[in-house]
Amino acid sequence: MHHPQATSRNDAALAACDILARLRSRRLRVHCITNAVAQNFTANVLLAVGCIPSMTLSAEEIDSFVTSAQALLVNLGTFDAERREATAIAVEAATRNKLPWVLDPVFADRVKPRATFARELIDRRPAVVRLNHSEFAALSDSSLSHDSALSYASSNRIVVAVSGETDLITDGQRIAAVSNGDPLMAKITAVGCAGSALVAACLGVEADPFRAATAALAIIGVAGELAAEKSNGPGSFAVAIIDRLHCLDESTLSARARIS
Amino acid sequence: MHHPQATSRNDAALAACDILARLRSRRLRVHCITNAVAQNFTANVLLAVGCIPSMTLSAEEIDSFVTSAQALLVNLGTFDAERREATAIAVEAATRNKLPWVLDPVFADRVKPRATFARELIDRRPAVVRLNHSEFAALSDSSLSHDSALSYASSNRIVVAVSGETDLITDGQRIAAVSNGDPLMAKITAVGCAGSALVAACLGVEADPFRAATAALAIIGVAGELAAEKSNGPGSFAVAIIDRLHCLDESTLSARARIS
Amino acid sequence: MHHPQATSRNDAALAACDILARLRSRRLRVHCITNAVAQNFTANVLLAVGCIPSMTLSAEEIDSFVTSAQALLVNLGTFDAERREATAIAVEAATRNKLPWVLDPVFADRVKPRATFARELIDRRPAVVRLNHSEFAALSDSSLSHDSALSYASSNRIVVAVSGETDLITDGQRIAAVSNGDPLMAKITAVGCAGSALVAACLGVEADPFRAATAALAIIGVAGELAAEKSNGPGSFAVAIIDRLHCLDESTLSARARIS
Repeated sequence: MHHPQATSRNDAALAACDILARLRSRRLRVHCITNAVAQNFTANVLLAVGCIPSMTLSAEEIDSFVTSAQALLVNLGTFDAERREATAIAVEAATRNKLPWVLDPVFADRVKPRATFARELIDRRPAVVRLNHSEFAALSDSSLSHDSALSYASSNRIVVAVSGETDLITDGQRIAAVSNGDPLMAKITAVGCAGSALVAACLGVEADPFRAATAALAIIGVAGELAAEKSNGPGSFAVAIIDRLHCLDESTLSARARIS
Repeated sequence: MHHPQATSRNDAALAACDILARLRSRRLRVHCITNAVAQNFTANVLLAVGCIPSMTLSAEEIDSFVTSAQALLVNLGTFDAERREATAIAVEAATRNKLPWVLDPVFADRVKPRATFARELIDRRPAVVRLNHSEFAALSDSSLSHDSALSYASSNRIVVAVSGETDLITDGQRIAAVSNGDPLMAKITAVGCAGSALVAACLGVEADPFRAATAALAIIGVAGELAAEKSNGPGSFAVAIIDRLHCLDESTLSARARIS
Repeated sequence: MHHPQATSRNDAALAACDILARLRSRRLRVHCITNAVAQNFTANVLLAVGCIPSMTLSAEEIDSFVTSAQALLVNLGTFDAERREATAIAVEAATRNKLPWVLDPVFADRVKPRATFARELIDRRPAVVRLNHSEFAALSDSSLSHDSALSYASSNRIVVAVSGETDLITDGQRIAAVSNGDPLMAKITAVGCAGSALVAACLGVEADPFRAATAALAIIGVAGELAAEKSNGPGSFAVAIIDRLHCLDESTLSARARIS
């Protein structure tokens, strides 16, 4: 039996503010193995919160990049032999250096071998797995509920962060719901991928992966809401969310974060 | 001798509106083998009209992606060994599943081996080949005219869609000219590539490839005109065309489409 | 001992205007081996000043692309086996065709093998090496000063262009400082990379690589300043700098260029 403890709204919002402040003050290096579609947008999201992104995939160099970084993202979109080899080396380096890492199993619901590979990676203990409802269903063999998320996180000893209209984050004990965001976030490519990169960045400044993941999804959700207010559609939204992330301050985040 | 039948303007504009409505209502999966420069913009164009893009190139996965999609794009920009192998598998899967596909032979006028490969692909019967004047000249060994386009389409049993100030679309019998668009469309990378992806999307909801290609070029042309009205240059144009595609409605399309 | 000659401000600004006018009037082909993150933005920067970018990496095609181009960029971001092979062929073709080329040794300060490869490339005599302070320090084994830059340029017989709050350009004899630009240029990915592509473009229309590099950095710096005036953050800045490059005229460039 699971006994989820709800986190207090104020606590969680304050933690998010604190994490954002740490992101702003350190020039964190975040290495990203991510898909070709998302690389540029992801780099700009990380830069907007004060991080230094790197995106190299080559087998010869990736150990050095990961070893000199503070967090790692592994995103399975446009996965190929080069990214598979890069991931093996990067996860090895992250484990050796006790670097936290995030897995984003993009389209694990579309293709069998990708789901298999995602499961192998989850056995390597990412700190957080961020994914959508379909991907959660494909990997956990159960549709999303509080119980299935708690059980999946607990049995795999990971934090699971499921994006949707309301984001659900759990470490198997605690559970949080973030209800920020805007429907335009699903109308532009790479927003989810960049959200996972932001989770990785937050892991680089916060030792508790449950708090880090919750903060990251609140930060990008609030930036998304603010961006939507100034947008004429998904094109201008993609521009505005970078602007909003860049100027997001703690008082705005604290006032708008809806974490329960 | 060719006896082209002009399509009535009203018919063609109404068909385009009907095709746009179908795009909006179905969540069509469009798989794209496209160049590294165009992947992000292409994904956003497809999302803006309601499709679900995928961009994977890996030999292990591409059969699954194509088989579970409704249309395929093969774009030869930044072509390499990985994309060549992906294309072989993807075209095989498309043929087996009777999935319509589009060929965009980017820069076939610049490099001999690319023109050769484009010709081999045309023998595999894409539904539509979308290209510019120089690429048409390189592949057909003739400069563009109504006669040369009709003849090339007819002898290869494809629809040819040649972009330019006025777009020319023919299946060897019928011929259409779309005179929408704006010069800024040539000042930003990937607009042509994304137009080809939109042709693929329209093929997924319309069985007549001549009508599908005509509709796609009218849709992106009208969106381009509307975007240009609000732009300060190519940067803001690239943003605005995504916004305009996203909110383009049938009455605007019908009022502005110039198809003869 | 070095005896740098300061270039007169007026001379340098007029030279930059002249180079911009030449860029606008010729449809220059610039081939770019560049990182995956920067490809799209780089293509749009080149298009904005009137060039035709190409980005192909495949071993089979790159000789043809370089041979039919007027300038070449080699950027080491996201470097991998494919780009390494492409670079070998491209530099060979550039040398054979007396095509000027630019090296941008991205992150040569982060990884040893990359620094080694950058040094090998510098021995192949790029016309210009454009890099930041950390990369200069890693490659020259000395921190940046007028003397260390002059000495490094002179002993390698290259033009060195070091970006920073003030850009420093030297061919070992002459030295120029460009103090245009805006801090937002460092908050968006690929601006530096695109600046290097612009240096390559200027080399295609100006035989003196010192003047070409100085002009390119003044052009992108002035466009950056103008863009910052209209921006709400790095997202809108990335859009505005493309717009500003596209409409930058000689009188604005001449009035705002700060070259000493």
